[in-house]
Amino acid sequence: EELEGDDPYFTSYGHFSIHEEMLKDRVRTESYRDFIYGNPVVFKDKVVLDVGCGTGILSMFAAQAGARHVYAVDMADIIYQAMDIARENNLDDKITFIKGKLEDITLPVEKVEIIISEWMGYFLLFESMLDSVLFARAKYLKHDGVVYPDRCNISLAAISDPDMHTAHVTYWENVYGFQMSCMKTCVVREASVEVVKPERVVTDTCVIKDLDVCTCGLADLQFTANFCLTVTRNTTITAFIGYFDVFFHKSAEQKVYFSTGPHATPTHWKQTVFLLDQPMQCSKGDTIEGVLTCRKNRKDPRSLIITFSFDGKTFTYNME
Amino acid sequence: EELEGDDPYFTSYGHFSIHEEMLKDRVRTESYRDFIYGNPVVFKDKVVLDVGCGTGILSMFAAQAGARHVYAVDMADIIYQAMDIARENNLDDKITFIKGKLEDITLPVEKVEIIISEWMGYFLLFESMLDSVLFARAKYLKHDGVVYPDRCNISLAAISDPDMHTAHVTYWENVYGFQMSCMKTCVVREASVEVVKPERVVTDTCVIKDLDVCTCGLADLQFTANFCLTVTRNTTITAFIGYFDVFFHKSAEQKVYFSTGPHATPTHWKQTVFLLDQPMQCSKGDTIEGVLTCRKNRKDPRSLIITFSFDGKTFTYNME
Repeated sequence: EELEGDDPYFTSYGHFSIHEEMLKDRVRTESYRDFIYGNPVVFKDKVVLDVGCGTGILSMFAAQAGARHVYAVDMADIIYQAMDIARENNLDDKITFIKGKLEDITLPVEKVEIIISEWMGYFLLFESMLDSVLFARAKYLKHDGVVYPDRCNISLAAISDPDMHTAHVTYWENVYGFQMSCMKTCVVREASVEVVKPERVVTDTCVIKDLDVCTCGLADLQFTANFCLTVTRNTTITAFIGYFDVFFHKSAEQKVYFSTGPHATPTHWKQTVFLLDQPMQCSKGDTIEGVLTCRKNRKDPRSLIITFSFDGKTFTYNME
Repeated sequence: EELEGDDPYFTSYGHFSIHEEMLKDRVRTESYRDFIYGNPVVFKDKVVLDVGCGTGILSMFAAQAGARHVYAVDMADIIYQAMDIARENNLDDKITFIKGKLEDITLPVEKVEIIISEWMGYFLLFESMLDSVLFARAKYLKHDGVVYPDRCNISLAAISDPDMHTAHVTYWENVYGFQMSCMKTCVVREASVEVVKPERVVTDTCVIKDLDVCTCGLADLQFTANFCLTVTRNTTITAFIGYFDVFFHKSAEQKVYFSTGPHATPTHWKQTVFLLDQPMQCSKGDTIEGVLTCRKNRKDPRSLIITFSFDGKTFTYNME
């Protein structure tokens, strides 16, 4: 099954088409919908804050599910459309839109009981809005309030895809007759975002981060994790991949979960690929033990620097 | 035949992958190569300026074809890789790289005999570097020098693609149970960039701009053009499309040309789609006569405002 909105021939450069792409990511949007509609008890008569509301779809789900009032915040101009949309659906008395950076605005209420947000970026944390969600949680959430999704984890696996390696790495050895081998390192060091076919995965998977969104702090978003991957067949490993899972579990009768992993329906987050400089021969049963670090780039806090250390070597990747 | 580098599952967000995508656009890169290598007489012993050199591929083609010296200018950091690449190919004595905005730097020579540049953007002029090329032409090109490509034209046609119209327009009538009809206008007003299948084209084509790059001025880049399209079958027109053709003809024994139209091999420029608010019933032989204007957005000179006037109505599109 393919992502419905994922038309490979459509270049999404516009301002509105980005929102179209996100709405059309059904795994994403239907997970929020199914959780909210499936748990009216959670939302009934509650005051809800939607961080980064975009077109307001999550706010409307919450209003529809019986929320007393929803405060929807976004700094982007799309919030003007969200206002129109709420009016069009007769929900403008239930949703108050506030344009601005969450850190700069003041809500007209002191506390909210639920925070909903779709803040996730590539590899969960790249260009993510989680910092703003944590700010909102600290400032506005009641002590027994809940942030949804309430839990996210990041997983790692390794893949064998020699064609991908050739296309992005070997390619530079002969570009229209010229050598561009210095580009190999440049391209390898940039993590890429691609849909990986499940049959390319040649190890088990390893959770490297388990984030409780209701309790975690900013410090948890930069971390060091041990990983151990067991190779499932004789193969040549060409890349690590990272992906994340999202959970709507806390206080829920109808628990909802979705994965952005290679074995699940592709989402607009795809998977994050960390190419190896050199493919690595492995035998079934081998283990790859190492340490991963993930930290923000000080020069640009929305970008990430990720390192993999194993076999006495360290490889650094940028997402920027 | 598909664009080789056009892997639909690959999100090109990185700094280097953009250059990878452009190099792998074989229609683009091989056209420059075939023109330069096919016309050694044009390049032999000439002083060449490459505006926006990127990885330096055009400069290396020119050096390889016998240019006396190439000055390669780019304001982006990719020029550091271009320097390494030139060294790797023993062309560093033939190519001088200068980092900076063309308007701000000073070449170490007074005049050049040839300017080469791959400056084209979507719909030819969107986010294009043509302004810089014209600046370079005025300041550095000898009176009998040539800019390559020396000619570009922009063409228009109309298509029938009801599924595309439904996906981008009708879609907003029911988004997970909500009406978002205000989004229709927003999305329609944003021209999109997509590969259009040739069988979708249901009119003849009409050249709306013919640009002589060796003589045109900045004023030519904002224009008004009459168009007349003849419908080739009974159909429902859902959009106009725009695309451009590129010519390397002046002083050339081996003339080279490529098209970014729907009947040619797809390039990374694809086609530009201007959706109609309402599909339009047409009969074979009907003509659509109108006026197109293309102008820069004063607030952001790299973005375009394009209007179509016909049947007494005017539709405005933004590319930004």
